[in-house]
Amino acid sequence: MTDIQIGGAKRARRAYSFEEVAIAPSRRTRDPQEVSTAWTIDAYRFELPFIAAPMDSIVSPTTAHTLSGLGMLAALNLEGVWGRYADPSALLHEIKQLSDADVTARMQEIYSAPVDLDLVSQRVSEMKQAGVTVAVAVSPQRTADLAPRAAAAGADIIVIRGTTVSAEHVSGNGEPLNLKEFIHQLDVPVIVGGCATYQAALHLMRTGAAGVLVGFGGGSSMTTSDVLGVRVPMASAVADVAAARRDYLDESGGRYVHVIADGSMGQSGDIVRAFACGADAAMLGSVLARATDAPGGGAHWGAEAWHAHLPRGQRNMLTQVGTFAEVLNGPSTHAAGAMNIAGALRKAMATTGYSDLKEFQRVEMVVTA
Amino acid sequence: MTDIQIGGAKRARRAYSFEEVAIAPSRRTRDPQEVSTAWTIDAYRFELPFIAAPMDSIVSPTTAHTLSGLGMLAALNLEGVWGRYADPSALLHEIKQLSDADVTARMQEIYSAPVDLDLVSQRVSEMKQAGVTVAVAVSPQRTADLAPRAAAAGADIIVIRGTTVSAEHVSGNGEPLNLKEFIHQLDVPVIVGGCATYQAALHLMRTGAAGVLVGFGGGSSMTTSDVLGVRVPMASAVADVAAARRDYLDESGGRYVHVIADGSMGQSGDIVRAFACGADAAMLGSVLARATDAPGGGAHWGAEAWHAHLPRGQRNMLTQVGTFAEVLNGPSTHAAGAMNIAGALRKAMATTGYSDLKEFQRVEMVVTA
Amino acid sequence: MTDIQIGGAKRARRAYSFEEVAIAPSRRTRDPQEVSTAWTIDAYRFELPFIAAPMDSIVSPTTAHTLSGLGMLAALNLEGVWGRYADPSALLHEIKQLSDADVTARMQEIYSAPVDLDLVSQRVSEMKQAGVTVAVAVSPQRTADLAPRAAAAGADIIVIRGTTVSAEHVSGNGEPLNLKEFIHQLDVPVIVGGCATYQAALHLMRTGAAGVLVGFGGGSSMTTSDVLGVRVPMASAVADVAAARRDYLDESGGRYVHVIADGSMGQSGDIVRAFACGADAAMLGSVLARATDAPGGGAHWGAEAWHAHLPRGQRNMLTQVGTFAEVLNGPSTHAAGAMNIAGALRKAMATTGYSDLKEFQRVEMVVTA
Amino acid sequence: MTDIQIGGAKRARRAYSFEEVAIAPSRRTRDPQEVSTAWTIDAYRFELPFIAAPMDSIVSPTTAHTLSGLGMLAALNLEGVWGRYADPSALLHEIKQLSDADVTARMQEIYSAPVDLDLVSQRVSEMKQAGVTVAVAVSPQRTADLAPRAAAAGADIIVIRGTTVSAEHVSGNGEPLNLKEFIHQLDVPVIVGGCATYQAALHLMRTGAAGVLVGFGGGSSMTTSDVLGVRVPMASAVADVAAARRDYLDESGGRYVHVIADGSMGQSGDIVRAFACGADAAMLGSVLARATDAPGGGAHWGAEAWHAHLPRGQRNMLTQVGTFAEVLNGPSTHAAGAMNIAGALRKAMATTGYSDLKEFQRVEMVVTA
Repeated sequence: MTDIQIGGAKRARRAYSFEEVAIAPSRRTRDPQEVSTAWTIDAYRFELPFIAAPMDSIVSPTTAHTLSGLGMLAALNLEGVWGRYADPSALLHEIKQLSDADVTARMQEIYSAPVDLDLVSQRVSEMKQAGVTVAVAVSPQRTADLAPRAAAAGADIIVIRGTTVSAEHVSGNGEPLNLKEFIHQLDVPVIVGGCATYQAALHLMRTGAAGVLVGFGGGSSMTTSDVLGVRVPMASAVADVAAARRDYLDESGGRYVHVIADGSMGQSGDIVRAFACGADAAMLGSVLARATDAPGGGAHWGAEAWHAHLPRGQRNMLTQVGTFAEVLNGPSTHAAGAMNIAGALRKAMATTGYSDLKEFQRVEMVVTA
Repeated sequence: MTDIQIGGAKRARRAYSFEEVAIAPSRRTRDPQEVSTAWTIDAYRFELPFIAAPMDSIVSPTTAHTLSGLGMLAALNLEGVWGRYADPSALLHEIKQLSDADVTARMQEIYSAPVDLDLVSQRVSEMKQAGVTVAVAVSPQRTADLAPRAAAAGADIIVIRGTTVSAEHVSGNGEPLNLKEFIHQLDVPVIVGGCATYQAALHLMRTGAAGVLVGFGGGSSMTTSDVLGVRVPMASAVADVAAARRDYLDESGGRYVHVIADGSMGQSGDIVRAFACGADAAMLGSVLARATDAPGGGAHWGAEAWHAHLPRGQRNMLTQVGTFAEVLNGPSTHAAGAMNIAGALRKAMATTGYSDLKEFQRVEMVVTA
Repeated sequence: MTDIQIGGAKRARRAYSFEEVAIAPSRRTRDPQEVSTAWTIDAYRFELPFIAAPMDSIVSPTTAHTLSGLGMLAALNLEGVWGRYADPSALLHEIKQLSDADVTARMQEIYSAPVDLDLVSQRVSEMKQAGVTVAVAVSPQRTADLAPRAAAAGADIIVIRGTTVSAEHVSGNGEPLNLKEFIHQLDVPVIVGGCATYQAALHLMRTGAAGVLVGFGGGSSMTTSDVLGVRVPMASAVADVAAARRDYLDESGGRYVHVIADGSMGQSGDIVRAFACGADAAMLGSVLARATDAPGGGAHWGAEAWHAHLPRGQRNMLTQVGTFAEVLNGPSTHAAGAMNIAGALRKAMATTGYSDLKEFQRVEMVVTA
Repeated sequence: MTDIQIGGAKRARRAYSFEEVAIAPSRRTRDPQEVSTAWTIDAYRFELPFIAAPMDSIVSPTTAHTLSGLGMLAALNLEGVWGRYADPSALLHEIKQLSDADVTARMQEIYSAPVDLDLVSQRVSEMKQAGVTVAVAVSPQRTADLAPRAAAAGADIIVIRGTTVSAEHVSGNGEPLNLKEFIHQLDVPVIVGGCATYQAALHLMRTGAAGVLVGFGGGSSMTTSDVLGVRVPMASAVADVAAARRDYLDESGGRYVHVIADGSMGQSGDIVRAFACGADAAMLGSVLARATDAPGGGAHWGAEAWHAHLPRGQRNMLTQVGTFAEVLNGPSTHAAGAMNIAGALRKAMATTGYSDLKEFQRVEMVVTA
């Protein structure tokens, strides 16, 4: 990235968002049917390289099952309503109905109920029994507490997800989580993030994580930039972390840590750009919240939106476009990149002549205004 | 173009749109009457360097005749309603009337009717008999099937047009079209595209095409960028392909392949910029769809809008401004570049002191915010 | 300006608009009362460095007198309504009342009446007798015809103004105007333009002009960019032409040709930036059309708006803010740079520590997003 | 900053606004509770590094007390309504009620009442007696007159604040203020500004000021750019002035002059960026005017808005979000950076691993579109 002098001695790199880049076909073309979007992490193989974000508006035990059946991974937030309430249906419905003025305060109440540890174990067991590849998400603060319990109940993949997660957390308030040691002891693969720079990602890779999440929540429902001044445009962030993956692969003698773009992918074109910049998989939020069978019923929010002291996100109302199946695999009846996102990815790969996602990371790109 | 590091090892070129550039008069001026906009391709000479895009909202057998009489070429889409229905008038009217919510799904139905091969031949013959220089457009998928039939019926020029067309298509699903061989066997000049890079254009030029279309559909009715993440801003794309034209001219020992800008030219000022960047001709969409005698009746859509699985375009409603004759040659009663587009091109050339389009490709330009 | 490769072999310079630049105080400050905005061209001295643009919405014989009394120059368009009609009051009122849809066509009619040569002489004589420093404007096409007549009737300054005026006009249609010879023979100082590049300005300076107009009409009422694709952002254009002034001063052994910014100065801050970029004076349009005593009565249009075949401008409706006196010298009761524009210029000069306009051309500037 | 050629011989530096930059976490993280936002200037220590701007919509004697109790400094404008009227409550209420069309003219009237010197002394004494660390603001024009009086009455800190304040003011109209001598004689620390460049700041530092204000009023209620053409984007301005602080520290053998960002910080994220660019403290306007206990009652305006001849600001109406206590320390029930701004600053520091504000000035940043 270009190094810029903001003023005086302060320098910064110019970073690019998905909106500022595009792919540029320039070689052969290929039939979309002959393109593979398969993604393999650890022992798990998925037809679609997507992970449903651990947001109550998208992933419930039921929709984790649906999405699993459609060939992708879904992460249940253990600190969401399904980890706090035996039956949260009425609450989900209420969140959708609340006015913009009231919704933040009410969500702060709803999510102030304690996480129920037995319920956490129960959710995992039930999904496991239903045949789902079970992924669950926890915050860094609750990782030590919840993750082993989820693993014991049968979780296949643990996602540790916060606005920023670092390999070295300093705390005088009790012993901080030693990520490296924790991941080493845990028997299941761990995906951890967000991060957005080469250095931060490299340190996370060294903890033994199977994948890192790239992004600080730049998506449709977050206001991290407004509140904290924190923002790293995603195209640059994904490309930087992909460089860390390559260097760590060499440093570690062959450990390939998956780069998972997380946020700012509101249209299928953005998802395509994430892979073009070097992502191995994409964690999806608003795209899936548009499904008619999503638990949010058209409302969409993340954990930032109900933070007790400093909410950094909003409940957004989205237009619903079709079922999860139609959103993922079409057919599409919308022109704006909200349906058949897997088909769009396949078409983009075919148009540029690539046959798998790893190759597609080399596609030619342009920067636009 | 400037080479930019997006991040890590990912690099991209900065590309410019027509909106970001402008021409800058800096020398002599000239009388507009002494300027020629004539364009010659193969054996055909036109007073106006425009091609009506093969879209059902613009080109019917009737309007092809009208536009021919006004001095320009018009391409009938053989896979549009005129190749599928004996009398599509009611359907054209219906498309205009449909609500935004319903129009995509209904267009998918309308265009699911099969292409009628006899009808294809008949359309060509009728236009030919009416004295029109007949240009017809086919998709790459149907080229082998439809193009020879059209040529046999008397078509003068074949346009092979897809979102991206490459000289080397890989397919396990039957024998892919060998463009070079196909063009060699066909007895009529072929225009092929879109493409948007030097490399892709050079390969297309080597197939023996008489002209290449520059653009992936960045126009008013397309959402390719949203859906596929594909976009190459047009000013840079045209300038790059013009460089391929020059290099191929040398490589081939004198074959001049025409560079035809296709898309993103919604106002006469954009058309002027296309020629300034190096175009030999311009394929026009929305500008012509604004004519009161256009078949769309103010509605405008392309083939992308009715794709069965992954529509990448919309039906747009445009304000009608005057007849084809007034849109092309004025007089204009509108200030926004929608009428007298040939007069605007002539005036721009005169203002900068150039007398023909080839010279005008050297005009001084600026990049703006 | 930075040289940019648009693509292939096409290069262009990055040019900046007034909106993209600003002045940055960095030294001493000064009392606004101790700042002079006086401007002298040829034998004429004005307290204010402004010229009212030759537009019927601003300059009538009456308002030329008013503005003269306020210390500035005003140019009457001899090809406007005052050169075509004995009493145009009703027409001016009608233009204001017309709907957006009808106004262009009706203005084309109004301005199709012939210019009345006797009326032209009479207008000049009357203003002269009223004690006004008389400036009149003509188009390049009518210069040979109208300018000598205006000079004979007593005009003090002739303005030759077109979208683009070059020192070398090529025409097979009769003898083109030889600017150099014409200016040499005429007994009054000539201001000529628009132009927007170093080269074009240098050639105009060599014709013997006393001043050059910088700009192609980028102002609030013009659509030259949309229609012709022509645009040169004003900050760069003024700075370039100022460089031509300096070089011509040397080349000519001391002839100082005035650089007059023309267009794109809708707020007093823009006017300040024009001087900061190197202008000696500013030709004002919309700022003056906001005056309650302007002939347009809140409507504003230029000659481009009534072009018979290719109108490149619109009639705009503006909010009126106060009398000419208040617009120029305040006091202001508006915060947006529409009133007390001379006071704003003085304050900007005082804030940066300069005491006259020539010194102020050296003020420090920044480029912003 | 990058040096750019606007055109000809005119060069300018590219300057960046807070909106164009962001902080990028890339190292360790930290518990927000272990972060200190304390700020010490001269003998005064504050828990929060904020100064309430001397605007009648924010600071009254009463709210100065409130804000002092919350751990921050507030500056009362001695030339505002509290220095002109014994009881201005009705006027404050009236300003809030006025229509946009009438408000500027009426404010010009209200503020044309003379400053009452006895009242000035009385306001200071009363605040002092209430236990407040008393900061008062004066304009450069009234400094010699009002500042010694305020100091005599017990003011702890004097703020000299104008659009631009220079160390060298040229005036033929009486003796101009000699800042250096004045500050030397005065017994209390002086904060002075605005300024926005390295050079201007360095000169102000040499006058003996304890702090300099960075900014010309780029905030929500000002139109300095529109009216005067003056603008220096804040991220660059703060970084430049921070460089002057460092160089002056060396030059002076250890005098640390505080850099105080003033303006353009409408959300907590902007405040974070100001510190990241090098600020020691932030002077806050609209953020505090959103408090339910602010004197403006939701209306917000500065001294520029009531300038007698050339107003350069507006009265803005803002949405009220909570008490001063909630705006500063939360808890927040809004997602857009308007509440818990101290918490947001702490969280941003924790997320990037810094424990105090001085360290945080080194945080990694990016430039975005």
